[in-house]
Amino acid sequence: MGVLRNGKVGIRVMDLDAALTHYRDYVGLYEVAREPGRVYLKAWDEYDHHSLILKESDRAGMDHVGFKVRFASDLDDIEKRCQAFGLETHKVAAGTRIGEGETLCSVLSSGHRIEFYHDMERTGIKVGSKNPQPWPDDIHGMGANRYDHVLLTCDDVAEATRFFVEVLDFHQSERMITPDGKETLASFLHITNKAHDIAFIKGPDAKLHHLAFALSSWDEVLRAADIQSRYDIPTELTPSRHGLTRGLTTYFFDPSGNRNETYCGGTFPYFDDEVVTWTADQAPKAIFYHGREMISSFAEAVT
Amino acid sequence: MGVLRNGKVGIRVMDLDAALTHYRDYVGLYEVAREPGRVYLKAWDEYDHHSLILKESDRAGMDHVGFKVRFASDLDDIEKRCQAFGLETHKVAAGTRIGEGETLCSVLSSGHRIEFYHDMERTGIKVGSKNPQPWPDDIHGMGANRYDHVLLTCDDVAEATRFFVEVLDFHQSERMITPDGKETLASFLHITNKAHDIAFIKGPDAKLHHLAFALSSWDEVLRAADIQSRYDIPTELTPSRHGLTRGLTTYFFDPSGNRNETYCGGTFPYFDDEVVTWTADQAPKAIFYHGREMISSFAEAVT
Amino acid sequence: MGVLRNGKVGIRVMDLDAALTHYRDYVGLYEVAREPGRVYLKAWDEYDHHSLILKESDRAGMDHVGFKVRFASDLDDIEKRCQAFGLETHKVAAGTRIGEGETLCSVLSSGHRIEFYHDMERTGIKVGSKNPQPWPDDIHGMGANRYDHVLLTCDDVAEATRFFVEVLDFHQSERMITPDGKETLASFLHITNKAHDIAFIKGPDAKLHHLAFALSSWDEVLRAADIQSRYDIPTELTPSRHGLTRGLTTYFFDPSGNRNETYCGGTFPYFDDEVVTWTADQAPKAIFYHGREMISSFAEAVT
Amino acid sequence: MGVLRNGKVGIRVMDLDAALTHYRDYVGLYEVAREPGRVYLKAWDEYDHHSLILKESDRAGMDHVGFKVRFASDLDDIEKRCQAFGLETHKVAAGTRIGEGETLCSVLSSGHRIEFYHDMERTGIKVGSKNPQPWPDDIHGMGANRYDHVLLTCDDVAEATRFFVEVLDFHQSERMITPDGKETLASFLHITNKAHDIAFIKGPDAKLHHLAFALSSWDEVLRAADIQSRYDIPTELTPSRHGLTRGLTTYFFDPSGNRNETYCGGTFPYFDDEVVTWTADQAPKAIFYHGREMISSFAEAVT
Repeated sequence: MGVLRNGKVGIRVMDLDAALTHYRDYVGLYEVAREPGRVYLKAWDEYDHHSLILKESDRAGMDHVGFKVRFASDLDDIEKRCQAFGLETHKVAAGTRIGEGETLCSVLSSGHRIEFYHDMERTGIKVGSKNPQPWPDDIHGMGANRYDHVLLTCDDVAEATRFFVEVLDFHQSERMITPDGKETLASFLHITNKAHDIAFIKGPDAKLHHLAFALSSWDEVLRAADIQSRYDIPTELTPSRHGLTRGLTTYFFDPSGNRNETYCGGTFPYFDDEVVTWTADQAPKAIFYHGREMISSFAEAVT
Repeated sequence: MGVLRNGKVGIRVMDLDAALTHYRDYVGLYEVAREPGRVYLKAWDEYDHHSLILKESDRAGMDHVGFKVRFASDLDDIEKRCQAFGLETHKVAAGTRIGEGETLCSVLSSGHRIEFYHDMERTGIKVGSKNPQPWPDDIHGMGANRYDHVLLTCDDVAEATRFFVEVLDFHQSERMITPDGKETLASFLHITNKAHDIAFIKGPDAKLHHLAFALSSWDEVLRAADIQSRYDIPTELTPSRHGLTRGLTTYFFDPSGNRNETYCGGTFPYFDDEVVTWTADQAPKAIFYHGREMISSFAEAVT
Repeated sequence: MGVLRNGKVGIRVMDLDAALTHYRDYVGLYEVAREPGRVYLKAWDEYDHHSLILKESDRAGMDHVGFKVRFASDLDDIEKRCQAFGLETHKVAAGTRIGEGETLCSVLSSGHRIEFYHDMERTGIKVGSKNPQPWPDDIHGMGANRYDHVLLTCDDVAEATRFFVEVLDFHQSERMITPDGKETLASFLHITNKAHDIAFIKGPDAKLHHLAFALSSWDEVLRAADIQSRYDIPTELTPSRHGLTRGLTTYFFDPSGNRNETYCGGTFPYFDDEVVTWTADQAPKAIFYHGREMISSFAEAVT
Repeated sequence: MGVLRNGKVGIRVMDLDAALTHYRDYVGLYEVAREPGRVYLKAWDEYDHHSLILKESDRAGMDHVGFKVRFASDLDDIEKRCQAFGLETHKVAAGTRIGEGETLCSVLSSGHRIEFYHDMERTGIKVGSKNPQPWPDDIHGMGANRYDHVLLTCDDVAEATRFFVEVLDFHQSERMITPDGKETLASFLHITNKAHDIAFIKGPDAKLHHLAFALSSWDEVLRAADIQSRYDIPTELTPSRHGLTRGLTTYFFDPSGNRNETYCGGTFPYFDDEVVTWTADQAPKAIFYHGREMISSFAEAVT
């Protein structure tokens, strides 16, 4: 029972067409629906109707992140737990967004809007579920397999962590702490066996650091970086490994300035794993394992 | 609550030294303990004391497969559920095997011995959990990251599936059925987001088809195959993809004839995914996606 | 001075449209010209007009293999050397085939037609030669980079070797000999730093064993094998390594039964390297390093 | 006839033990001989006695680069050609350095010492040349296959190019020119089918930009970068692609400040290829294809 996964993210973009070109043609997603002010996309290996919503806005950033629950009754349970934790909640009726059922909404003390849902229209994976090929005929761009996770910034990382652990039963896979151990500067949280379904790092409240898409191999990371260069996509991090989670990765920006990540590999954490702990003096190595130098935009470019 | 993972497997081997050379030097595991008639090993990325037990015997095969549960109280819960399902259970006292706490045991109607445990000595991963490197200094052989899964044979695959789904809340990721849909010939079951934590295929009861070890990349699969050849390890399947689960793989045999698999990639299933279904007419492609021909030993060589 | 490379191969196919679909859509070549009974193709990373000619015929096999020479005057020099070696030669006028200049032709004692040419229309590589991207926008199928080599069968491998070494100044990179050292069963010959530009194995005279296309990585070999399966291309060898040359490879057949190879990696031989020698008792490992068993069709399926 | 390859490089290091640890344990070479003030190393896939000489000195930099010729008589021929080009030459007697035969020496107008040799002791490749395994048992560190090339700086790149083309019959694979086409800023030259056996970029005379070692795959580049981080090796470029030559690469420094490169993939140029031309306005993309920003140390850190 409880949360199945981080199933969707809504982001704000300032030019819907430019964003669509970016996420569809370069990242490799598929447009699945459109309405005034919104485009819905999904990756080829996802069953639900959509996993990314582009919302036209006058500024960039994250509109919401949405968690799918296993049972319809989980929504009521989570509603109560949120309220017990001190958060206000409200429900949005089915059909308010295309393909979506009833949605439970709240806003974290970090200022991030969070949603829970059980019902979403099912459109299936691009390879089908009967005698499927391993990848679709029309794979394109970076060929992103799935939306993977978001990393958000907030002032009180420990408090954001407490919500996910106590209310939603997430487990912390990794963290970065100050040398004196008194403050958590980064927190990686999982409910699946991903290295992180959501993560928080110290920074301004209510901001998005990046949204990540899953790739299958280090060769696909190379191909992604080639595509970033071919289409002059602003790039912050060339192919590298994170010390945190061991993941293989690139960072780049959509036309509105929202940071994207390609992510592959990484740990496969279990709920009884120890929390891998990084000390802040090792931050450059923890984040940029190969370069071992902080990139100034890493902390500054948040939307 | 419930099962965390397929955490260990005990196999019978006819020559303990030869088996140790195989699993330690070639597969790349680490010997962690030894007692008369038993050697305990683990992979570099596992926290618990061991994940593989080699048990000296006059025949090959699987002694038991063990599932770790999240809470100590889960053992009682599972005991009741097993009994309600019609299985006899008994408990084995802590310390009966090195590093192991109290264990709940049962035998499936398929004849396979299954164990549940919450307590096992913790010895940690080889890279440590504070500012770790991404892989250990003394990585060797195939460098197996983790014990991954077992595939077992039995006469009634549907019944074995029913146990894991109804009693242990596993989800079926993939299956192969007869063309008329009346019989399940193969069933892949997961409790984590692995493509399979355990799987069953039609065959003689109480037999082991293979035990699998996780690798990180297709390049590591190549290296594994190189090592299989270098050390004249009997090899059944050279680097290939499975249609089922999309996993990248090799098959080979330990000196007692137990089949091993190296496994990497593959799907990342969720509990709300549709069951991917293969029809038996597509069996060669489902199993050997590249070769598309049945290998006769695949069905015959079971221990 | 002398031979620059194995620059083109002409093969006979029984169904031109089916062959075109195979080499263009699956192997990933580009159609560059067509005339009644012939289609010309090239790979994306080749400067010359074409590297593969499909010639309609009532049987499969190799029509000719063509070597490009560095200087126009090399043709006369090679003509004299061929004649001194005892081979008849003749010249074919420029324009006899599309895009080709004057061609020097001969037939080896093995029965294979061999051509030499200096002039071929230049159409350039698909990425251009000014500030190029690393791969073309319209890369497709297996994305073959280049035609790589042919392997031919003949009765007297030593004699074929002698021609390439004495007349054309090729160097032997590897060979397989009988245990008594008296007979050469396979001979790998290079004029570039490829592991082989042409090779001969013991078998019927005048036959083609395979033509090979260069890929860039082991991941591309996986993708090639996926494509072989997706389009039901008859496959003889799934992703593997050759002991001979260390190359990474798959074998499959075009619709007329001509064997193709994808080839990547492999040694980078120099003219002062020792000849790597394999003894015939190690033939299965030399050819199929991972499987270490002879595949019966390997020797039988020649065109 | 003529130059076979760039066969060795001698570099100056300020701490012989530290340099040995770097090249042997991290880069993965093998120590083959030692005398006061010099250590000789080779890579596992090289036949000759050594390919790298570490020479103790009070400053870093390149002592010499050495080209192996095919025939002993080539030395006399090259001597005459050098003199005709206006360079002084002298010969160094066999045995002056361990394992080396008679050596022809000169100094380019760029100030770089260049050597030619035909005789060097043969010690063979680590896997042997009879029924060899594809890689050696004791492969270690980055597992460098071979010494690959040097890139040198000089004021007059066109003049350095002219020497290699006119005297040694090298071919230019790629170049960078000023937007007006009047000056060559970078020149890549090959005599084998490597993307470059030697290259020059605009900068101070007589300086070394980097020496490069060949790796086999993008996965090995990742492993190299992991090793750079694990052992705190100063790193300038994390895994990336060059636009020039398409090669996959990392840059890092030995303890004396000599820049090293790991290099894999890249083009396979022929003597009739067009010269790929980059314009200086595209320099960041040409050098750092993924990052597309000049790294300040790239031009400044020369030894």
